[in-house]
Amino acid sequence: MRIGILTGGGDCPGLNAVIRAVVRKATGSGAEVVGFRDGWRGVLEDDAVPLDLTAVRGLLPRGGTVLGTSRTNPYALDGGPERVLATLERHRIDALVPVGGEDTLGVAAKLSEGGLRVVGVPKTIDNDLDGTDYTFGFDTAVGVAMEAIDRLHTTGDSHHRTLVVEVMGRHAGWIALHAGMAGGATVVLVPERPFDVDAVVAHCLHRFESGYSPIVVVSEGARPADGALVTSTGQTDAFGHVRLGGIGAALAAVLEERTGRESRAVVLGHIQRGGTPSAFDRVLATRFGLAAVDAVDAGLSGVMVALRGTDVVPVPISEATAALKLVPLERYREAEVFFG
Amino acid sequence: MRIGILTGGGDCPGLNAVIRAVVRKATGSGAEVVGFRDGWRGVLEDDAVPLDLTAVRGLLPRGGTVLGTSRTNPYALDGGPERVLATLERHRIDALVPVGGEDTLGVAAKLSEGGLRVVGVPKTIDNDLDGTDYTFGFDTAVGVAMEAIDRLHTTGDSHHRTLVVEVMGRHAGWIALHAGMAGGATVVLVPERPFDVDAVVAHCLHRFESGYSPIVVVSEGARPADGALVTSTGQTDAFGHVRLGGIGAALAAVLEERTGRESRAVVLGHIQRGGTPSAFDRVLATRFGLAAVDAVDAGLSGVMVALRGTDVVPVPISEATAALKLVPLERYREAEVFFG
Amino acid sequence: MRIGILTGGGDCPGLNAVIRAVVRKATGSGAEVVGFRDGWRGVLEDDAVPLDLTAVRGLLPRGGTVLGTSRTNPYALDGGPERVLATLERHRIDALVPVGGEDTLGVAAKLSEGGLRVVGVPKTIDNDLDGTDYTFGFDTAVGVAMEAIDRLHTTGDSHHRTLVVEVMGRHAGWIALHAGMAGGATVVLVPERPFDVDAVVAHCLHRFESGYSPIVVVSEGARPADGALVTSTGQTDAFGHVRLGGIGAALAAVLEERTGRESRAVVLGHIQRGGTPSAFDRVLATRFGLAAVDAVDAGLSGVMVALRGTDVVPVPISEATAALKLVPLERYREAEVFFG
Amino acid sequence: MRIGILTGGGDCPGLNAVIRAVVRKATGSGAEVVGFRDGWRGVLEDDAVPLDLTAVRGLLPRGGTVLGTSRTNPYALDGGPERVLATLERHRIDALVPVGGEDTLGVAAKLSEGGLRVVGVPKTIDNDLDGTDYTFGFDTAVGVAMEAIDRLHTTGDSHHRTLVVEVMGRHAGWIALHAGMAGGATVVLVPERPFDVDAVVAHCLHRFESGYSPIVVVSEGARPADGALVTSTGQTDAFGHVRLGGIGAALAAVLEERTGRESRAVVLGHIQRGGTPSAFDRVLATRFGLAAVDAVDAGLSGVMVALRGTDVVPVPISEATAALKLVPLERYREAEVFFG
Repeated sequence: MRIGILTGGGDCPGLNAVIRAVVRKATGSGAEVVGFRDGWRGVLEDDAVPLDLTAVRGLLPRGGTVLGTSRTNPYALDGGPERVLATLERHRIDALVPVGGEDTLGVAAKLSEGGLRVVGVPKTIDNDLDGTDYTFGFDTAVGVAMEAIDRLHTTGDSHHRTLVVEVMGRHAGWIALHAGMAGGATVVLVPERPFDVDAVVAHCLHRFESGYSPIVVVSEGARPADGALVTSTGQTDAFGHVRLGGIGAALAAVLEERTGRESRAVVLGHIQRGGTPSAFDRVLATRFGLAAVDAVDAGLSGVMVALRGTDVVPVPISEATAALKLVPLERYREAEVFFG
Repeated sequence: MRIGILTGGGDCPGLNAVIRAVVRKATGSGAEVVGFRDGWRGVLEDDAVPLDLTAVRGLLPRGGTVLGTSRTNPYALDGGPERVLATLERHRIDALVPVGGEDTLGVAAKLSEGGLRVVGVPKTIDNDLDGTDYTFGFDTAVGVAMEAIDRLHTTGDSHHRTLVVEVMGRHAGWIALHAGMAGGATVVLVPERPFDVDAVVAHCLHRFESGYSPIVVVSEGARPADGALVTSTGQTDAFGHVRLGGIGAALAAVLEERTGRESRAVVLGHIQRGGTPSAFDRVLATRFGLAAVDAVDAGLSGVMVALRGTDVVPVPISEATAALKLVPLERYREAEVFFG
Repeated sequence: MRIGILTGGGDCPGLNAVIRAVVRKATGSGAEVVGFRDGWRGVLEDDAVPLDLTAVRGLLPRGGTVLGTSRTNPYALDGGPERVLATLERHRIDALVPVGGEDTLGVAAKLSEGGLRVVGVPKTIDNDLDGTDYTFGFDTAVGVAMEAIDRLHTTGDSHHRTLVVEVMGRHAGWIALHAGMAGGATVVLVPERPFDVDAVVAHCLHRFESGYSPIVVVSEGARPADGALVTSTGQTDAFGHVRLGGIGAALAAVLEERTGRESRAVVLGHIQRGGTPSAFDRVLATRFGLAAVDAVDAGLSGVMVALRGTDVVPVPISEATAALKLVPLERYREAEVFFG
Repeated sequence: MRIGILTGGGDCPGLNAVIRAVVRKATGSGAEVVGFRDGWRGVLEDDAVPLDLTAVRGLLPRGGTVLGTSRTNPYALDGGPERVLATLERHRIDALVPVGGEDTLGVAAKLSEGGLRVVGVPKTIDNDLDGTDYTFGFDTAVGVAMEAIDRLHTTGDSHHRTLVVEVMGRHAGWIALHAGMAGGATVVLVPERPFDVDAVVAHCLHRFESGYSPIVVVSEGARPADGALVTSTGQTDAFGHVRLGGIGAALAAVLEERTGRESRAVVLGHIQRGGTPSAFDRVLATRFGLAAVDAVDAGLSGVMVALRGTDVVPVPISEATAALKLVPLERYREAEVFFG
């Protein structure tokens, strides 16, 4: 048995833990593992590396992916799928384990329909993949964001300033929701719920009245309900014409004007996705890797591994990629209890 | 509506987050909250403190419990339950929210049977309470243990030494299992599976052969299958007569003799249960507190809140305290893939 | 004996540790301490709070300053110094301990010349105050920046991207120098040494050739030797017309174009100055507070406490504020050994 | 020019940073570096490995030493020094850079007297080497201990328990002093100052009276002034007959009996010396490595590099190893301000 593995899309803490688990488990039962570099690019261009026990030593705590990653999509290229199959045949790959998000798994599902044995491992730092309770990397990102918020509370209070913390989440607000709840945010703004600037201002003022300074946690994809954030000088318009950076900077400018208090934006950016995974993510990623090999051994295809409660189980890829997993209203209501 | 709250048993990161959430949620809907100090002792002795919004400011990131805790059991005292009820009546408490483990919740269940409105919040750092996927505090403990293991790898490798890490877990090996998987342990030993010293020695030697040094993660409650760990000089016998400390020290002595390599034990102890909660635990504890108030509002009693998948739901206390949640064989098998 | 204390300028991890140490030491010898809120503003407006042992409980690990801070300068206001003296007289303050940077200490020096007993405590997160080996807060800021760089290495390598990390340091590059050396930066750019874009590009390309991705650490005040960073589309000009943010974003855009590899900027911002101080900073801040009270007891004035080697000693404020402490060439040469 | 390097004695965070810096600096000026494995053992047995740029990639953040370490002393073996010189000649080593503590540097000094070119790098996690303000590893150890103390405060307070934290320091109390000051210890006990049990009890009781629980930080080498710690049942005698572990456990037992409050001991052990170095230690270790090569280039011998203020300078090894650097009384007096 020969298993191919690749990691695609944005990187995520835990990718290396998946690779290690696949290699340890497969090797233990006599199978061989081949890694393809930089996602589908490595399969297209036959850029491969054999992965044995030595190759995966020390990988568990390391962030990112030793295989590299890219956003290459074989179906966007002439003869892409054929080249993929040719490479896999050349390496006598019996089953492929692509680790990635919606795009990577979408390719995987199509290849599976064409007859290739494919078992996917879901990966999205935003936690927006349906079909699994959580994906690895998310807990680490939330932890990094929470630690930043913990730090920002004291500097905000010392200067009597509003601090706006922009976190990842283009379409789903999971990181903002969890980091905001964990960090004691005054307001949490997510893409799923267009926000009312007046309400944000009111919460900030209320917080100042209590003698503390507000922290506003905002997903990069959050937007105001009425479509624009404009200061009286017209300097700032985050929508359509992003001039002063993203939503965080735009919102800080508006809050400064509207509350009459200094406001500053902090954009956490890439530190949310780099670095060593949390314990939760190392365990989850490891279990995903083990379960992927189990699924291969069981002859499954077109499935991805998923966390359901405390179990890791195979589910159809199609089920997981059909819809984005958004923050439901009842979860947002939980965060709202602490607003203001 | 007046709600009483208390925290009993061993402390746990997240207790303060529960208290804060209960107060924020209850206060928001017009209810009042009274805290009792040091678990059931405070109810027995009428040691109470009103908890308003000001009282819970800044509690979210703080470890331990501002209410204090104890192992006092009203049912072990003459007239205990009567005194509990008298205190609650004096404070016009409509519903009680005890936060605690098996013992605390057991008392809660009995009081509920007697007609008191009780909604429990489960707490066990060992994660051994049935009826809920996870309890808060566990993730923090695993994280602390994993960071320690991360640190110990390099010192073990530099000195070509075996390091035995003793973690919490008297009856259930969840912390050892998760910290061991997350930390890349060479062997993980849990109470649920009496271990074979020969096998541990073999794994350690195999690890040394690969050029690295072994880390053995052992629950404080783990025991060898044949009942004793004895060195040739008879110095060490961890069972019955614990002379050189707990299982960690005993095992290190035996491994040193049997492998011919220096061995050292590290007992993590109380640092696993103190300090600021992880993001996961802050969110979980917060959601538990909110759900407890929801359950009170819904008129439920004799229930505790529980995590099922991603939902927090009420379940009968009796269900949760009937049996200890042990590490199942299939989970241990996952860790075994990485032994040696 | 009555001592007044205030904290001015930007906040810094360790300010609370200074306040606590002053109160503990002074109280222990029978003196009383009065805190003024928000730097000189509190003295001007007589916004004061008595500080006893209870008031400083739990302050040691807390970031920021419980006294609040501001950039108010009494000498910039009509009758400012007179109002300061009047407030101090009203509170029967025998000696004032202002904790702050160049500006705060400058005011202190002038007041001292006018006869007020003043003992300053130096504070600058940028470490650019002359007369002391280090100031508290700097070590914490470097630690936060280093942890961010540690995290960014793996995401950079996974995506084969250049990551530009902008850190604090308007006039002096100490944070960039130390965080860059500690984080294994490919290039470190500081205000003291206008940089050559070609050289930066060369280092980045050299790094890519080795199979790893470059991390460029840049002080917010660093500038290119030839005055502008311009991409071929003219989109970016960080100097004069900062459109896409600060130097980090401008440099990332230029490096992307010049190296042909994706580049991203991360601006660490306020997380460098918030949050709990490192052990080094807690010890240093505590010793500064103790030494300030010692200096008051010794009848000194016009001095500030300073770290010289392992000793904390009083030095004339004028000496410390005469010139900015810049990164000397030989220290920068040390970092250069690791470029590329 | 060919430089040999070895690491001896107990491991320490920063050893790898020294190795990396020596290789980067030496290689940059055309020299070659040879590493000897496991301290003097590698030289005695000619166990060597060439160290080029590739060999030191990724070493900076890694704890421990990739060269391994041992306590082997060539002067304790017949023909030891001759074998050392023979190995060095065989590898055409022009200068040797031993990284280690008193023992390792003592050997280095003797070899230097015999004509070998030797430049030492001081290493002691206990910070007890004279001649240098600080050694790398110490700051990391203090940080780990402080974080543990931070965590223990909340669990102590919740349970109204005394927590005794035993830290490293057999002869010098630097770690206890700094971690205790940084962690807000109620009492700090160091080897340099035999302690009075009555005074410790009084401080603990005073702390309980304030509503908080005491944390006692004790160096492993601290001892009571009257020579023994005995409980009324005679169970515990830490001196002469250490039965229940070290000083931490013995002291906890006595404090429990004498204060009437539960007491627990936590022995931090090896987690203090393992794992990634702090920023301070990475910078210091890197500068030590660079300065060692500079000293070799300058033709010096019999010296070690040392931190003096902010400068790294060469000093005679003999000066540094003549006496242990102990905690002076005035530094201990600083900590005492916060006792009770």
